[in-house]
Amino acid sequence: MHSFSELLTEFELFFGRHSFPKNPASLYEPCSYLLNMGGKRVRPVLCLMSHELFATLNENAWNTATAIELFHNFTLMHDDLMDDAPLRRGFQTIHEKYGHSTAILSGDVMSIFAYEHLNKINTTYIHTVIELFNATAIQICEGQQLDMDFEKRPFVTMDEYMEMITLKTSVLLATSLRLGAVLGGATSGCCEVLYNFGKTLGIAFQLKDDYLDAFGISAETGKQLGGDILSNKKTYLSAKAYEVANNQERIELNDLLNRTDEGKLKDTLAFFQKLNIQSLLQQEIEKYTLQAYELLEKVPVVSRNKVHLHAVADMLLKRDK
Amino acid sequence: MHSFSELLTEFELFFGRHSFPKNPASLYEPCSYLLNMGGKRVRPVLCLMSHELFATLNENAWNTATAIELFHNFTLMHDDLMDDAPLRRGFQTIHEKYGHSTAILSGDVMSIFAYEHLNKINTTYIHTVIELFNATAIQICEGQQLDMDFEKRPFVTMDEYMEMITLKTSVLLATSLRLGAVLGGATSGCCEVLYNFGKTLGIAFQLKDDYLDAFGISAETGKQLGGDILSNKKTYLSAKAYEVANNQERIELNDLLNRTDEGKLKDTLAFFQKLNIQSLLQQEIEKYTLQAYELLEKVPVVSRNKVHLHAVADMLLKRDK
Repeated sequence: MHSFSELLTEFELFFGRHSFPKNPASLYEPCSYLLNMGGKRVRPVLCLMSHELFATLNENAWNTATAIELFHNFTLMHDDLMDDAPLRRGFQTIHEKYGHSTAILSGDVMSIFAYEHLNKINTTYIHTVIELFNATAIQICEGQQLDMDFEKRPFVTMDEYMEMITLKTSVLLATSLRLGAVLGGATSGCCEVLYNFGKTLGIAFQLKDDYLDAFGISAETGKQLGGDILSNKKTYLSAKAYEVANNQERIELNDLLNRTDEGKLKDTLAFFQKLNIQSLLQQEIEKYTLQAYELLEKVPVVSRNKVHLHAVADMLLKRDK
Repeated sequence: MHSFSELLTEFELFFGRHSFPKNPASLYEPCSYLLNMGGKRVRPVLCLMSHELFATLNENAWNTATAIELFHNFTLMHDDLMDDAPLRRGFQTIHEKYGHSTAILSGDVMSIFAYEHLNKINTTYIHTVIELFNATAIQICEGQQLDMDFEKRPFVTMDEYMEMITLKTSVLLATSLRLGAVLGGATSGCCEVLYNFGKTLGIAFQLKDDYLDAFGISAETGKQLGGDILSNKKTYLSAKAYEVANNQERIELNDLLNRTDEGKLKDTLAFFQKLNIQSLLQQEIEKYTLQAYELLEKVPVVSRNKVHLHAVADMLLKRDK
């Protein structure tokens, strides 16, 4: 059993052994640039941690963890382009630095390298792992599509919003845990509860992200503060505001969405404050956090072996960036 | 042994059984739209035809052929966006009809569905097939990157150009043939010569494409006539013109590249005519065509079993659209 930081160190070593070809540099340099920005590597470490609950870490687990992280970075590259995000982890995004076509093509090639690693999994597990991986990869695309579709609509319901973040964000955390367990030979029941733990953790994590986008500090998050509000992305805040608003307030919210002036961010935040959205969001984060811990309790493994997973949940949910 | 049209009919039936989920329609409708445009389905049929040289068609072969066609369409979707092509097979391209983000994301999800089909290949072959498939997928991205890099340069050498089209176009035809043979249990020598036949056929095919872009008829090709010239894409024509031009003519060629006015296409074609490029290109197409037929001769299979492959080569190389 290893802690997050121990597995992270080991993972970075394994992950660092993955190198892209040298040429064409215009294709591969942006891939390395993105991977070198760092990032928390939460998904691969969760995969390894889950695997360690049932077995000694082996090549199958390392390669799956690597595939997950490569695939995740591929989606970041394309999402940043589609969302026209200027910053990622405090650095210029790929399309900002290298152009749109590069962000498309370097992303594409990175996703193929993810499958290169999946292809190293041995015969016993390869079909199951690719099946679970693909199902999740498809859901992530669907989630991103919903996210973009929602931008064009004035309002979305809370159910729609929760479905979107489940697909776009939670299922990959959930599947990272499930894949580690599958490769460790865990029972299907065991895999299922770990999956649900990951899904709930993922929802809490995304809600925390929504919170930090509006109420965090830009220098800490490495992103543009209020970026979601300025680009009319649907978040818990806008979905909740729509839910609790009366007719007059819905008109006000709609007017705020249509604004493009400098005061938009400040006035939208004041509007959310009036409807008590910050506090409602905090309660919701706490609800999912509690649920996640309860699900972790249910994983049929001796408690002391779960302390590291518990610590990751703490890290993700108690962060301020 | 089946002819191209027999295998095409069978393939369309199998391929038609592949359906995308209904929702989100904004993600999947563009995928179906592109696949329903048709296309020659050359790559999957070559895979099936090659497989039939050695074995009875089975699920492994059908799924591999399907994966190849899905992957090919994924690259078309992204390439059309990167190249800003308005038309494909006489229809509006995806980014023109549905927008840039859709072309990115629908392409992404289509590539995952390609891997879904590869994951249906049985245990004996899955690792080898994914390995060959990925190596080719990576080369295709590299080829597209070189193609884009070349657009920014005034000139490319003939060697550079040939490397680019080999990666971008030929290797997928070559690998389609190789995969069919691998799944049919062919010897590695056999697979190799089929691969080389496909690669040479692919080069002749791309040179023919270059020819038709400049000297074809738009209504027949379904593409914008002279599109390559207007967008400063490097083709055999520009690479050859640079090779045979004297210093004064190179300056002329450079001036033509920098023009954006209405007369650019007409004047560039006249310039190529002056340097005899059309006839040189015809000779080059004939050279590669002959080489392809010679390689097909060398495939260690009784001649009468290769008549259908021969007919496909005829179809690809003697087309006028």
